[in-house]
Amino acid sequence: MDQPSDENPPALRPILRWNFGQPAPAHDRDELSVEEPLEIRVRGRPVSVTMRTPGHDEELAAGFLLSEAIICRAQDVLRIEPCVRNEAGNLIDVILAPEVFVDFDHLTRHVFASSSCGLCGAATVESVQKQFPPVTSGPGIDATTILSLPPKMRQTQETFARTGGLHAAGLFDAAGELIALREDVGRHNAVDKLLGYALLRGLLPLDRHVLLVSGRTSFEIVQKALAGGIPVVASISAPSSLAADFAEKSNQTLIGFLRDQRMNLYTHPGRIRFQAS
Amino acid sequence: MDQPSDENPPALRPILRWNFGQPAPAHDRDELSVEEPLEIRVRGRPVSVTMRTPGHDEELAAGFLLSEAIICRAQDVLRIEPCVRNEAGNLIDVILAPEVFVDFDHLTRHVFASSSCGLCGAATVESVQKQFPPVTSGPGIDATTILSLPPKMRQTQETFARTGGLHAAGLFDAAGELIALREDVGRHNAVDKLLGYALLRGLLPLDRHVLLVSGRTSFEIVQKALAGGIPVVASISAPSSLAADFAEKSNQTLIGFLRDQRMNLYTHPGRIRFQAS
Repeated sequence: MDQPSDENPPALRPILRWNFGQPAPAHDRDELSVEEPLEIRVRGRPVSVTMRTPGHDEELAAGFLLSEAIICRAQDVLRIEPCVRNEAGNLIDVILAPEVFVDFDHLTRHVFASSSCGLCGAATVESVQKQFPPVTSGPGIDATTILSLPPKMRQTQETFARTGGLHAAGLFDAAGELIALREDVGRHNAVDKLLGYALLRGLLPLDRHVLLVSGRTSFEIVQKALAGGIPVVASISAPSSLAADFAEKSNQTLIGFLRDQRMNLYTHPGRIRFQAS
Repeated sequence: MDQPSDENPPALRPILRWNFGQPAPAHDRDELSVEEPLEIRVRGRPVSVTMRTPGHDEELAAGFLLSEAIICRAQDVLRIEPCVRNEAGNLIDVILAPEVFVDFDHLTRHVFASSSCGLCGAATVESVQKQFPPVTSGPGIDATTILSLPPKMRQTQETFARTGGLHAAGLFDAAGELIALREDVGRHNAVDKLLGYALLRGLLPLDRHVLLVSGRTSFEIVQKALAGGIPVVASISAPSSLAADFAEKSNQTLIGFLRDQRMNLYTHPGRIRFQAS
């Protein structure tokens, strides 16, 4: 059995951990999955940037080109230049056999920026962050209010969802009231639908609101929340390392593993009010 | 509370349902989340195609443009032309106020084909399917072997994963042996890594293999499996409607909800051998 790489261990990060009944959250550490951009090049030309977990990057590049029907066998690949890391991210270059035809126009147009999120072209995390100013405000919210959000979203979902195949995103106000709920096979779409809902109704910025997502929190989810001015992003599941880095810089409160009357606070916990039960 | 749309109900589909101990799977029906491509246009020019669940398409388009920092308020949008449906998919056109500057080169280059999967440009499901011939072979596999796969993948994951934030994809042979396991924050990346692993070692086509994924099965996961010639795609969770449609046409066996000694068979169950326990 060929095992997953252990060359890129999870990122260890200081967090605050809170269980219902505790007067205050306790300092702890949590391991986050590493998420970093990788730019895939073919013969030196960029064809895709994908957000991925480092490790097995040569395989990722080769598998991507197979899925894109550019290559179909080992001999199509002359060599893969080792992954270069710089401040703009990671970069890998696939040198193909001369007889392999690459329709770059088609490839870059049809490129699948798949995975949980994709930054195409030369976009870097830094350049994306510059597009939106950090959150400056944000109401204080009771921790118990935050705990009440997942059951509210689930109840509303159960009324509508019947397939178990949809991601959900809920927009709540600071009192914990559900403003809008959207579902989609793509979790980023569910968030885009919420943002569009708010924009088209003139509700932006959502600077007194909480975004709750049913899946894992990628960098892009937090960035989309910032586009709407949302100060608090919570998830039932885990955030990625880059999601936490982004939230740190953009002054957003990032909450993970919000379930079973517990939560982890990754960034800016000051907006959440804790009190003895 | 603004509720999720009920205008696009899940797709009802005939399936076979099997529990361990049953001599044969029983006919049933299952509701699948609808997944369809949506091409987003701005002033008539295509800027993105995303795989999404139909409904609230105007919101999706507006939210996408907000996330891309193209628009920032309701007044930036003059109107959104109603979604047009044709055989190539769905299409929506956002007409912006004249003063809104759109850097089309930048936008189409940096476009996030986010969500669970994205087809950019004018790509349609049909055109993608044409790139890879249907699977022609595929070994018979015992149903009990299929049931044994999730625990094997989980055990191997537990040895390595520590964060709960990673998607996993496992490649198994017809005897149920785990050939390789890959993890990633993006589930499509995990599959690409497996495909690249196989390609770089000259193992293609994987025509006697099973792909097991930890998350939901989108159209793109099944398409990637087809690129590697994989006849059986299984998941712990639900497939989308388009994943099932694709597997039907490409002669792939699609299995969902593979857990707790049960499974649902969505397409081509003939490869799976059932017998009384």
